Order: sequence, then C-alpha cells, then structure tokens
Amino acid sequence: MKGQLFLIPTPLAEETHQKVIAPSVIDTVRNIRHFICENSRTARRFVSSLKVHPSIEVLTFDVLNKDSKPESLPFLFAPILQGEDMALMSDAGCPGVADPGALAVAFAHENNIKVVPLVGPSSLLLALMASGLNGQQFAFHGYLPIDTQQAIASIKRLEHESREKNQTQIFIETPYRNNALMTHLLRSLRGDTRLCVAVNLTSQEERIESKDISQWNKQAIQFDKVPAVFLFLANS
Amino acid sequence: MKGQLFLIPTPLAEETHQKVIAPSVIDTVRNIRHFICENSRTARRFVSSLKVHPSIEVLTFDVLNKDSKPESLPFLFAPILQGEDMALMSDAGCPGVADPGALAVAFAHENNIKVVPLVGPSSLLLALMASGLNGQQFAFHGYLPIDTQQAIASIKRLEHESREKNQTQIFIETPYRNNALMTHLLRSLRGDTRLCVAVNLTSQEERIESKDISQWNKQAIQFDKVPAVFLFLANS
Repeated sequence: MKGQLFLIPTPLAEETHQKVIAPSVIDTVRNIRHFICENSRTARRFVSSLKVHPSIEVLTFDVLNKDSKPESLPFLFAPILQGEDMALMSDAGCPGVADPGALAVAFAHENNIKVVPLVGPSSLLLALMASGLNGQQFAFHGYLPIDTQQAIASIKRLEHESREKNQTQIFIETPYRNNALMTHLLRSLRGDTRLCVAVNLTSQEERIESKDISQWNKQAIQFDKVPAVFLFLANS
Repeated sequence: MKGQLFLIPTPLAEETHQKVIAPSVIDTVRNIRHFICENSRTARRFVSSLKVHPSIEVLTFDVLNKDSKPESLPFLFAPILQGEDMALMSDAGCPGVADPGALAVAFAHENNIKVVPLVGPSSLLLALMASGLNGQQFAFHGYLPIDTQQAIASIKRLEHESREKNQTQIFIETPYRNNALMTHLLRSLRGDTRLCVAVNLTSQEERIESKDISQWNKQAIQFDKVPAVFLFLANS
C-alpha cells in the first residue's frame, strides 16, 4: 500500500503563517515525516513554525528544485513507495504553480500515488483576485525575456492577444529587475490598457495598484527589490 | 475616510470551512457588517458557519451576479464610501476568479478604495497544483462553446496552442454537461496529450486523475453532475 502525496502551500511573507495557513495544512503536516521541498531552509523553518512536531531533527527534507533531474524521483519517493505519506512544498506559495513541483506530481500520477492538494496562499491568484481585471479568462506566462528588445516584442504580442481574447496576462519578474520591466511596460503598452502591480502580498507592506497606463505614466515608479506580480488587460 | 474592500474566499464543498478557511478570513469577517455576494443564500450560510457574529440579522447581503449592471455599484458600495469596511464573496471559491466579482474590484480601484485579497480555496488553482501539468505557463478559458462542432474546433485550437507554447489549458463545464465534454476531449485530442480531471475538490469525494488520452480511452467515463475542472497539456 503506497502513501499519499500532500501538496502543502507555504506563506508568501515572513511571520504570516498564523494568518494565512488553513487548519487542514497544520493537521496534515503533523502526520508527515518526509518532505520534498524546493528549498530545505525555508521548508524547515515553516514546519518548525507550526509547532506540531516535538523535534524536526527526525524529519527528512529532500530537495527538488529547477536543477533536479527526473532520475532522482524514485529516490525522493522511496518513503511513499514504502507506504508513508509525504508532503511537497514550494519555497513560497503553492507547489506545482510557478515552481518546479509539477515534476514530482507527474511522477506521483504515473505511479498511481494519490495526490492531495491543500488550500493556501498563491501570489498569482491573490493578485488576479485583487486586480479587478478579467478573472474569467487569464494566462500566466512566467518570466518575460531578459533582453530588452525581446521583452518589448513579447509585451506587444501579449497586449495584442489580450485584446483579441479579452484575456488577462499575468507574469512575474526577478525583484531587482522590476523597475526595468515597469519601464518597458509603460513605454510599450497603449494608454488605455489597464495594468495592475501587486507587491508584498499578504504582508504589512502589501500594495496593489490597478489603473490605465496613461495614469501610471503620471507617477514615479519604484518597485525595486520587492516580490511583485504584474497583470494587464487591453481595452477591447 | 473610505472603508476597505476585503475579498473573502468561501469553501468549495459542504462542511469543509473548518478545514479550508484561513484564520485571517475569520478575523476579517468578524469585523464586517456589509457583504457584497454572488449568492446571498450561500453567503449567509458561510458567515453563519463561522459563528463570529451574535446574529446575522443585523448584517446586509447585497447581490452582485452575472446579471448585475455597473450602474448598481455606487449603491452597493454606499457603506464603504461612508467609511465602513466591506467584503466581497463568491458563491464558492475566490471572488474575482471565474465569477463576476471583478466588476466590484475594478470599481474599488477607480474610487481609490483599498482592496485586500485574502487566502482561500480556488478550484482552478488546486486542480492545477494537483495535475502535474505545466504550472509555469497556463491559461484559464472559462467555458468552451456549447455547440458540438464549435467545442471540438475550440479543443483542437487549444491543443495546438498548448503544444506551441508548452501551456496548460484549463477550463470548466456546467456539471450536467461534463460527460459530453469528456467525449469531445477523448475524440479530439491526440493520444499523447495529457488530460487531468479534478472533481469534488476539497471534499471527501475528491478525485483527481491525470493521464494520457490513450489511457483515458481504456476506461469508462463517469463525471455526471459533479463540479469538475479540466486541464490538458499537449506533448511538445
């Protein structure tokens, strides 16, 4: 009899687990001894913060990150194949969304291991909810290209698609490049395209602004080094 | 001084609020007297279930649904414009995602009302996490066309796009049409396209299956009258 794979969301911001973590997550972590995580330091800290294990020394935290190879999966899954439940955790937010966790989930399905997703924070979803943009049709594109010309071409293509499909476009950026991305967006998008930027979600410093490019252009931009989600919807 | 608009997620399945609702939702609802909701019956029942108000008779529940007109918004927002915090609630899941709530959120941004999204259940996000499909690029398309020929054309177009962009395609269906949609999917998609169906999420009857079309074709399909999310990823 195989164990089950629980997908455990983790907090997006420091010191928020008591606000954002649902009871089922705490009850599940209590019964898990083996964790597959994107980052073992943040995973240990999160599990410790829940105070459901007398000691975390007896727990195992194995890493599955963007550099992991599919060949490592049978080793990572050894406990579950022997009947123990396991948990998959992202560095922040929901495993399998904007992180490398899908590799483990796909392996579970291929091996007839039951997958149980638990409710928790997702910066993409919170940003979409709070954007006021179309939540009936939307697409997440990950990161835009780093090269300036390619980034601008990509923004214009996504704006065209947004107008054609009435689709909200969602993407993220490495925090130190946020301001460069904002410059590209403000220069490339049409004045009546609506842009939302959501930063520091769930934290005391949360800030969510959603307005037309023509309005964004009237203010100074400062999103340096903060976790941000960008969303836009073209006026159709 | 205006109030704030809190976006309150609600449970997806009966009798699950004690498992899936985060503490910040309970703490917020405690301090809210005016609710804008998609369905006043389910909203009242959810707020009652939290047991944070001595009586729900003193609370107001005003409806914003797919038939609501933008002209009704100033009336709905009267309390917030007078300084009271308000909450926006979907029938099930997260307001503003696959529901008409974005209209209210957009109104809030236009009127400089602070929008605060809270963490909670989303069937789309849980299905994506649990699918093992690509969570780094994905798109939600709402409902496919009802007409059979149009539905099939739409499925083939989405499969082509999925292959081109390595994008997971996500959509939903009215429960009594699930089996018809499955028939279209199994007949239209390629054998090596991976399809995930996630039904009754967060409930005791939760069932999540993710496999190639060629494998789906070997089993009987029975998803009649259950809430379901459909996701597929073409083999590139």
